[in-house]
Amino acid sequence: MTVPIHKDHTELTEDQFNTLSEEVLKAKSLSYSPYSKFRVGCTILTASNEFISGANIENASYGASICAERTTISKAILSGHTTFKVIAISSDQEDDFISPCGICRQVIREFAKDVPVYMFKSSGEFIKVYMNDLLPLSFGPENLLGE
Amino acid sequence: MTVPIHKDHTELTEDQFNTLSEEVLKAKSLSYSPYSKFRVGCTILTASNEFISGANIENASYGASICAERTTISKAILSGHTTFKVIAISSDQEDDFISPCGICRQVIREFAKDVPVYMFKSSGEFIKVYMNDLLPLSFGPENLLGE
Amino acid sequence: MTVPIHKDHTELTEDQFNTLSEEVLKAKSLSYSPYSKFRVGCTILTASNEFISGANIENASYGASICAERTTISKAILSGHTTFKVIAISSDQEDDFISPCGICRQVIREFAKDVPVYMFKSSGEFIKVYMNDLLPLSFGPENLLGE
Amino acid sequence: MTVPIHKDHTELTEDQFNTLSEEVLKAKSLSYSPYSKFRVGCTILTASNEFISGANIENASYGASICAERTTISKAILSGHTTFKVIAISSDQEDDFISPCGICRQVIREFAKDVPVYMFKSSGEFIKVYMNDLLPLSFGPENLLGE
Ligand SMILES: [Zn+2]
Ligand SMILES: [Zn+2]
Ligand SMILES: [Zn+2]
Ligand SMILES: [Zn+2]
Repeated sequence: MTVPIHKDHTELTEDQFNTLSEEVLKAKSLSYSPYSKFRVGCTILTASNEFISGANIENASYGASICAERTTISKAILSGHTTFKVIAISSDQEDDFISPCGICRQVIREFAKDVPVYMFKSSGEFIKVYMNDLLPLSFGPENLLGE
Repeated sequence: MTVPIHKDHTELTEDQFNTLSEEVLKAKSLSYSPYSKFRVGCTILTASNEFISGANIENASYGASICAERTTISKAILSGHTTFKVIAISSDQEDDFISPCGICRQVIREFAKDVPVYMFKSSGEFIKVYMNDLLPLSFGPENLLGE
Repeated sequence: MTVPIHKDHTELTEDQFNTLSEEVLKAKSLSYSPYSKFRVGCTILTASNEFISGANIENASYGASICAERTTISKAILSGHTTFKVIAISSDQEDDFISPCGICRQVIREFAKDVPVYMFKSSGEFIKVYMNDLLPLSFGPENLLGE
Repeated sequence: MTVPIHKDHTELTEDQFNTLSEEVLKAKSLSYSPYSKFRVGCTILTASNEFISGANIENASYGASICAERTTISKAILSGHTTFKVIAISSDQEDDFISPCGICRQVIREFAKDVPVYMFKSSGEFIKVYMNDLLPLSFGPENLLGE
């Protein structure tokens, strides 16, 4: 099996796509990553068309590190945004599309079970994959809350 | 897209499968889960044909909780096992196959990028899904270590 | 030994203290805590005298939950604030001063090794304890980076 | 304030202390730490006088890393041990006593609110500090479960 990979950005206007690309490539400059020196940036476009950006914040105790996707979702939730149109991520990787780790997929899924995730190379090239494909058969709120 | 779901257990002898089923259904009795009251058990069959079992261990600070898959992999690694034939999980869910959360997929993937994961109902019924399908386009050691 | 507990707020003007109290008691309303139903709020006063507030954001996989102190520090760091005057926390506990968990002490310590932490009851009563006393002999950046 | 630091090992027989020292200095060889290259070992003496050892297990997604204290406590709990006489830790630090991070203090505290923690230098020299002093005013089970 290969996961479905998309190259379009049909859920966005041309302007939105341009802003998203620009923002997410800049976002990694917010990174606090003295340990890995691996900077990751994230930009979310909310349902109400606001852009919210963040980056990874590491810790001397590695387990307390928080990835870019999670600091950004936290910031969005704290600002009252709980539905998202697009989540985009970038890194300094030139040859690879940066992809969310499993922890972040779990946190994204709590709020956005089938949001499209845009994964960028540092050049601005990107691929789009849906959360449903990134975390299939997921464990979520309905397993615990019986919704 | 639908993730490929298998129902066979061809990587195991009949005896191994029987032991695995029995062990994983028992494993959840090791659970320390006073907060969620959601018991999960895990049994790993190592490359050298040893069975290693564990369960979830929660914490009053929820973020410090460790799922069954992760306590069990830790135990296996500490015993010198780093390659795995099968990872099986079970819970008290009668109608749903318990599935690993994103954090656990990330930890499994560090050591076993394409291991089959057996997900059980409490009745003993199971499905098998490969890690590659559970965490496609994963972020892993080669992204950081440049392997 | 008893840890030194203070009741003053000498690092704040009367106005700042009043705003801080008001903000931190309101902050818990931002909480996403369907699992524990334990709401926690946090307000940070930055070195440049800005108030930044947050709350705990839980996850169906408990280990992916992020406490109020950590969502708030993340938000502050992402806004360019890295030095803090005071960190305050509140909860719905009427009879107990809410205290930061060990994970949060570790994250606070990365950026604010000796900041005062104000711990509130839901009534508005508080105690003040310094981070150095909450996480003595801490493991931090200098252990890894050799600073 | 200075946290009380002890140098005795009165809760142990001479034989137990010798075994503990030997085990904890060896334990770090179990470490999987390709990212930090910072090996940490842990040895627990249980109430029933068994020695259980572990080490840190890191992950490409740093936040999924599990410290030595937590892999070792998990292993102990999974083996049915829930009360501990002593928790000892060691690292490759020659000049510093390795100290548990906040996450680990939180996990130790769930099961052993006032256990003595022995912190070793790589030479075998150690100090002893009680958990109550390492995580004062802790947030624990009674805050959530109302015990
Ligand atoms: Zn991540
Ligand atoms: Zn899990
Ligand atoms: Zn916390
Ligand atoms: Zn630790």
